[in-house]
Amino acid sequence: MKRARVACFGAVHEAVEVEGRLQLADGRTVSEKEVVWLPPVEPRTTFALGLNYADHASELDFKAPEEPLVFLKGPNTFVGHLGQTRRPSNISYMHYECELAVVISKRGKKIKRENAYEYVTGYTIANDYAIRDYLENYYRPNLRVKNRDHCTPIGPWFVEAAHIEDPMNLALRTYVNGVLTQEGSTRDMVFDIPDLIEYLSSFMTLNENDVILTGTPKGTVNVVAGDVVVTEIEGLGRLVNTIVGDEIF
Amino acid sequence: MKRARVACFGAVHEAVEVEGRLQLADGRTVSEKEVVWLPPVEPRTTFALGLNYADHASELDFKAPEEPLVFLKGPNTFVGHLGQTRRPSNISYMHYECELAVVISKRGKKIKRENAYEYVTGYTIANDYAIRDYLENYYRPNLRVKNRDHCTPIGPWFVEAAHIEDPMNLALRTYVNGVLTQEGSTRDMVFDIPDLIEYLSSFMTLNENDVILTGTPKGTVNVVAGDVVVTEIEGLGRLVNTIVGDEIF
Repeated sequence: MKRARVACFGAVHEAVEVEGRLQLADGRTVSEKEVVWLPPVEPRTTFALGLNYADHASELDFKAPEEPLVFLKGPNTFVGHLGQTRRPSNISYMHYECELAVVISKRGKKIKRENAYEYVTGYTIANDYAIRDYLENYYRPNLRVKNRDHCTPIGPWFVEAAHIEDPMNLALRTYVNGVLTQEGSTRDMVFDIPDLIEYLSSFMTLNENDVILTGTPKGTVNVVAGDVVVTEIEGLGRLVNTIVGDEIF
Repeated sequence: MKRARVACFGAVHEAVEVEGRLQLADGRTVSEKEVVWLPPVEPRTTFALGLNYADHASELDFKAPEEPLVFLKGPNTFVGHLGQTRRPSNISYMHYECELAVVISKRGKKIKRENAYEYVTGYTIANDYAIRDYLENYYRPNLRVKNRDHCTPIGPWFVEAAHIEDPMNLALRTYVNGVLTQEGSTRDMVFDIPDLIEYLSSFMTLNENDVILTGTPKGTVNVVAGDVVVTEIEGLGRLVNTIVGDEIF
């Protein structure tokens, strides 16, 4: 099952796709253009991985990590499909990051990797934009790099785990204004999904609706106001976001 | 007004102190020993400051930062007054950090320092324990240092801003098993409360119930299972926590 959270008719609804339209729980259908797409999950704690694809680490002149590099993101950062993300006018480098987002199903601690998928309820796509200008600070990544309002488009769909045969073998692609600029596969993660669940739950409790953003492959490029950025993951859909300037909001 | 969140009589209550006892909203009173103290605020986003007292930075052989060093903490980390915090058995150095916690009152962005206190609803005490063994990782501080379950006692009281005449001139003290081990004053922060509110809101929205843990002064020492750690801030009370071993939970 693929489901979205959308706003229409004065309320927030869960919706599923039926013949190219969105069907609400009460049976009404609406076109995809008539709704506001919201993040399909409301994360409790959001973990984000740094340098979790060796080719991307190499592109940034870092060696691949020996331990998962994890930071947290706040709830202000999320924005839905077809939303807007602001590029500050006084920075020189902002890049997208197409990432598989893993949604946790239930509370767990000290989860072993062989049981890890029992704790996954499903997946969605995240685009974990970074303002690279502010990266080099004692505490990396600086909040100014990764925690700005609406800097993390997420969606469009939540896809149940049962519908994704092998989450560790999905193609990821990003298009800027229709041009393919990033291409990779989840099979190239340094730490795979079971590794990450085992690692995090080894020292803290994971909970229902915690979300893990699993990192991005090589191919990040600078984006500017006006760019339309599509991040796509096999089986999960296409997440569309528009970059706007500082003056907009 | 000082108020606590406590569990008793099968429910969670707000309580105030009346003649050394806790008074619930319905008028019942109960002794402080008969309740379970919960965190007095339920933070939305929690920001924590690193190296925000120059003497503490120096003690760790770091120079004072030129920009606030801020990281996020997840909701799993909090535990109330008289709670327990686990010290893993396989680590060599865990220290407490007595910190003034600032609670945000309302939504704001691009707040100027001269208006910053309009966005503060009150204060409490946090003890932002750190497992120093895991500090040196590309992403600092590693989640294993600062984001373990129950590694951040907070409370006992939420104290309204109007009751604290000068939050930038409060004595902080920590006692381990009754011995004073840390002493400082909020006036020695590198970035004061208005600086922090101006800084964070310059690039993201602050919201009601966001909490800023403002850093700790010099005087952190290793603690071990069995230690009773009291963090105290002038006008806010005394937050008591017990260190337990790995085997407990």
